Amino acid sequence: MIPLAVFERLEKVKQASPLVHNITNTVVTNFTANGLLSLGASPVMAYAKEEVADMAKIAGALVLNIGTLDEAVVQSMMIAGKSANQHDVPVILDPVGAGATPYRTDSVKRILDEVKVSAVRGNAAEIANISGQNWSIKGVDAGEAQGNLEELALSASAILHTTVIITGKVDFVSDGKQVIKVFNGNQLLTKVTGAGCLLTSIIGAFLAVENHPVTAAAAALSVNGIAAELAAEKADGPGSFQAHFLDSLHNLTEEEIMNFSKVKRGSGHDL
Amino acid sequence: MIPLAVFERLEKVKQASPLVHNITNTVVTNFTANGLLSLGASPVMAYAKEEVADMAKIAGALVLNIGTLDEAVVQSMMIAGKSANQHDVPVILDPVGAGATPYRTDSVKRILDEVKVSAVRGNAAEIANISGQNWSIKGVDAGEAQGNLEELALSASAILHTTVIITGKVDFVSDGKQVIKVFNGNQLLTKVTGAGCLLTSIIGAFLAVENHPVTAAAAALSVNGIAAELAAEKADGPGSFQAHFLDSLHNLTEEEIMNFSKVKRGSGHDL
Amino acid sequence: MIPLAVFERLEKVKQASPLVHNITNTVVTNFTANGLLSLGASPVMAYAKEEVADMAKIAGALVLNIGTLDEAVVQSMMIAGKSANQHDVPVILDPVGAGATPYRTDSVKRILDEVKVSAVRGNAAEIANISGQNWSIKGVDAGEAQGNLEELALSASAILHTTVIITGKVDFVSDGKQVIKVFNGNQLLTKVTGAGCLLTSIIGAFLAVENHPVTAAAAALSVNGIAAELAAEKADGPGSFQAHFLDSLHNLTEEEIMNFSKVKRGSGHDL
Repeated sequence: MIPLAVFERLEKVKQASPLVHNITNTVVTNFTANGLLSLGASPVMAYAKEEVADMAKIAGALVLNIGTLDEAVVQSMMIAGKSANQHDVPVILDPVGAGATPYRTDSVKRILDEVKVSAVRGNAAEIANISGQNWSIKGVDAGEAQGNLEELALSASAILHTTVIITGKVDFVSDGKQVIKVFNGNQLLTKVTGAGCLLTSIIGAFLAVENHPVTAAAAALSVNGIAAELAAEKADGPGSFQAHFLDSLHNLTEEEIMNFSKVKRGSGHDL
Repeated sequence: MIPLAVFERLEKVKQASPLVHNITNTVVTNFTANGLLSLGASPVMAYAKEEVADMAKIAGALVLNIGTLDEAVVQSMMIAGKSANQHDVPVILDPVGAGATPYRTDSVKRILDEVKVSAVRGNAAEIANISGQNWSIKGVDAGEAQGNLEELALSASAILHTTVIITGKVDFVSDGKQVIKVFNGNQLLTKVTGAGCLLTSIIGAFLAVENHPVTAAAAALSVNGIAAELAAEKADGPGSFQAHFLDSLHNLTEEEIMNFSKVKRGSGHDL
Repeated sequence: MIPLAVFERLEKVKQASPLVHNITNTVVTNFTANGLLSLGASPVMAYAKEEVADMAKIAGALVLNIGTLDEAVVQSMMIAGKSANQHDVPVILDPVGAGATPYRTDSVKRILDEVKVSAVRGNAAEIANISGQNWSIKGVDAGEAQGNLEELALSASAILHTTVIITGKVDFVSDGKQVIKVFNGNQLLTKVTGAGCLLTSIIGAFLAVENHPVTAAAAALSVNGIAAELAAEKADGPGSFQAHFLDSLHNLTEEEIMNFSKVKRGSGHDL
């Protein structure tokens, strides 16, 4: 994927400022909303079963994030997800910590059984868990184990019948046929809670303006990663990084994207 | 309203450090608490129906914010609001996203039917919605539509029988008879989630030390807006702005208020 | 306690990166998770009664914080606490605002009746309240009243049969026999919401790698306090302080700990 294509998708997000409806965990609501605002999207958080169907149907994308589940939230995710499906609003799922407890694994299965999702984003352990493959996990942030991640993305996509995004040092996007690798990013992202959750919501914003999930995800990953690279240059640690990262997301220029975007086919050829 | 009057109200807040009881949405709790601490007030968040009456009655002000409603929260708002009314604790309502879903609109009506509020703060679309007037809204952050905002503030105040605060590029405060305009602020506030919610809580802190709602609101709006102006001068984007804004709220001097405060009557004369 | 002993405990945390399971209030989840990440620990927040037993048993420590209680949360704390007890996972309790409402006081009693805790951390008013001693409190952040804090720490520890940590300008740690004083810290911590809550979780991280609760707590208090001192030197106010504080927690060096750590016996001799 050429850098210009990444930039064009970002411009579309900024122009449309899509409403991104997040049903997400209580840890990351603030950072997710601020990240989406910095990007140029319009975040909304709504959880009550009384209103999620109404909110999802007017949204550009729906984000389901299981970071701090309970039964009320699962129920609301089902209602919102079905409403989104009925109104052709793309849905993206973040299976935070799937595998850490049976409840998380089961909840993801229930959601995937009832809601058609356009994409799933997680680390390798989470994606392996929800697609029934073997991988290790500790808590919700781990999963940096070895393994053929490209293969995992392909097989998980085929099993789950959706676009799969595995993020880590390198990011992998697959629709079950092709794999795209994104090489942008910085290690400080792993020291900011909810950086992955925000990334899922950013992919949601791109899905709202770009029908092709692989293209939307690759562009979002590159934008997010470049913002992190630029922020890391100015940061003294995870605290200042967080502020610089939001600044960078907001200020990202065409020139920066043209210079730094690195999105490649799995085989090594350009997309 | 002369700048000195604004400064005097701020000094009262800092000296009294009023306890501000917030029943607010899950996105903004942290930023709201930090903003109130920077201002010099004492924030507390409490939601459980078992304790909200006890907390509201010892508070200097009660803030009801419907950003992420559910039935348990609505019920707690009713209990807390009635306790505040019984103990002469001023109540301020923030109808976040009213009009975006029927559930939000209905919940605001239920609260206003049962709880006497000293003030309501929202954007134009939210205020129009809860006062039954026509306006467009998208999600919870929009409502920058055209229209005679001064007229809207006056009529909404008359309809709702409370002080109405409409915030936007210019802010309008009305008790149904007069309108005050506040010209302080900066556009970066629209890129920080919960900036409006925090502002509502800051008005709450001023209501705790100033009986006249219009005066309290105008002073709070000016203080909040000046802090934003000073922060914007140092900020590189929404992330660094957020930190500078809290610093400015904390460090605001008499000289800065005297130099920058801009509060005018609707007709253009000084208050 | 000599500075080297503090540094060694911090190194243990960084090497083990213990999973710290937090059932905490909705105001501080984000800051707590970011603080634990900056320290080098692995935070997880999980609340649902369906999964807290599973999460607590794989954790290195369990943190129970009553800042925004409701019945579902109290129930989950009981389940998680019992699971932690069964699996020898240390539990630390933060009785935020105990005494502010009867509900908070009662809930702490219920938790302490059913769950064995390794340590309790609070301000003087909170500790006095939960140990049935007389003290004043306003809201959740106050409790800076006068009194013999060393005596309070000793008596509360004897009454509660657990290690007690009273934080304030000086911090006191007692197991009912000895008292340790920690002199690190900075006043700006009182202007950041959840600074105390994060401190409780940081003590949790140290409890995961150090069996002796007094030693773990003293080391954690010193590390947290030094990070605050270093951050305050760079900060312009509470907003920038917060970012610098996370940076400092992340970057803390052996030399800084050797130079600045101040942990003393109550009698004035070194531990």
